[in-house]
Amino acid sequence: MQLVTSTKKMQQLSLLLRRKGKKISFVPTMGALHKGHLSLVKKAKRLGDFVVASIFVNPAQFGPKEDYKKYPRDLRKDKELLQQAGCDLIFAPRVEDIYPEGYLTYVNIDELSNKLEGASRPGHFKGVCTIVAKLFNIVQPDFAIFGQKDAQQAIIIQKMTEDLNFPVRIIVCPTVREKDGLACSSRNSYLNTEERDQAKILYQSLKLGQKMIKAGEKNPLKIIKKIRELINNQKLAKIDYIALTDTQTLEPVRKIKGELLLSLAVKFGKTRLIDNLKICV
Amino acid sequence: MQLVTSTKKMQQLSLLLRRKGKKISFVPTMGALHKGHLSLVKKAKRLGDFVVASIFVNPAQFGPKEDYKKYPRDLRKDKELLQQAGCDLIFAPRVEDIYPEGYLTYVNIDELSNKLEGASRPGHFKGVCTIVAKLFNIVQPDFAIFGQKDAQQAIIIQKMTEDLNFPVRIIVCPTVREKDGLACSSRNSYLNTEERDQAKILYQSLKLGQKMIKAGEKNPLKIIKKIRELINNQKLAKIDYIALTDTQTLEPVRKIKGELLLSLAVKFGKTRLIDNLKICV
Repeated sequence: MQLVTSTKKMQQLSLLLRRKGKKISFVPTMGALHKGHLSLVKKAKRLGDFVVASIFVNPAQFGPKEDYKKYPRDLRKDKELLQQAGCDLIFAPRVEDIYPEGYLTYVNIDELSNKLEGASRPGHFKGVCTIVAKLFNIVQPDFAIFGQKDAQQAIIIQKMTEDLNFPVRIIVCPTVREKDGLACSSRNSYLNTEERDQAKILYQSLKLGQKMIKAGEKNPLKIIKKIRELINNQKLAKIDYIALTDTQTLEPVRKIKGELLLSLAVKFGKTRLIDNLKICV
Repeated sequence: MQLVTSTKKMQQLSLLLRRKGKKISFVPTMGALHKGHLSLVKKAKRLGDFVVASIFVNPAQFGPKEDYKKYPRDLRKDKELLQQAGCDLIFAPRVEDIYPEGYLTYVNIDELSNKLEGASRPGHFKGVCTIVAKLFNIVQPDFAIFGQKDAQQAIIIQKMTEDLNFPVRIIVCPTVREKDGLACSSRNSYLNTEERDQAKILYQSLKLGQKMIKAGEKNPLKIIKKIRELINNQKLAKIDYIALTDTQTLEPVRKIKGELLLSLAVKFGKTRLIDNLKICV
């Protein structure tokens, strides 16, 4: 497994691989890898001939009061995990190489970026779109693999890819969960024992919402209310949002019908966790 | 020479050409071709193995009160000219294919986009950056060739290409002029005889500015004042701006030193013309 830090070298390598007819699968990450990321790498391996995983904690997608500085970083462990998962190349650029002095260009999707996560994290998806566009140009992948846990991110990247005509197929893989249902996340490592224990309520509450819908509940507000009550029973939980939206427009739905996204963001102490379920009615 | 209208077909063709090791040279145009465009095609031919010219009048770069609807269109004549110039393929997509219903994604460089042309034409460079990013992804060129006449556009596209890591080399070719010095432009066809005659003052006034600088004038305001007087002698001329700026930041210079951009926009009747000279001191 190679480790490349230079954007130029990465791009030259990718252009060469494509010229040879190799299909490149790409898993962009911010490192601090867990089972969820590794499931993406395994999917990447099945799709393409050459698997690139990037590790880059992207400052442009963090707000000024967010956890950019303390975001977990452990390249040595990440390397081991990626090697075991069959990754061919790690691309780990430096911040100065990705955003050199005088950097000015941003990619944005206003209408989808201001909702849900974007409402709570202004500028977040501008940062996400920009880094993904850059990485697509550097890594030149045929396939790019994202996790369903970041549902809005996956929807926005799919839309950006189509709109800007990137020749990349976006693949979204199911959320990987711990035994008690908590979605794997690099940020889970921030939780203390009590917070970690209470955090399992997120998946339980999503499952409750799903159950209500399957049982015929037609009023989104009732579902959200029920979930809110359940989460609020956990005394360390502070709800940011609970939303039942369309999977394309991310607008709240009035009727329970079609393909829906039930998503939420909840803080436990200083740690903000997100989770979601796609539900078909 | 091929004519392709489908974005998918164009992209597949380009990916195939690249896989075969062919270097693609790309000249993006809005049609209504003149000698300036053809000089770009000739340059493209010298640089690459396969020359693609696009013809697309991009609605996203026109303001609501601008000339999008009446912008000259003549595909038959353009085809002939491109064939003669040695173009291999014309890519002429439909608007609905480039901006399908629900289109949302834009590329922008705020700081460079609000100056000079951008100050007079809000949103113009957002439209330009977006279409060029899309065309780069569709056509997958090794080289993209632009004209110096649109100086700010060339600077912005160069910056966008670097910032977003497009694997494309940007080439800027000298402005091609009519015998009396007027810069070739598709919009020259709007001018009536009298306007056309008076429009030659633009190049003359730029040359005067250049002469003053070469003669040692150090005060930008004096140069701009002199140019303003000269242009205002033409009774049909209405000056939008005259600027002496840095070629990188596009900020007005206080000292005459280094590489400068002397640029202007002037209306003759309803027709807005631009021109510029790069001057090294």
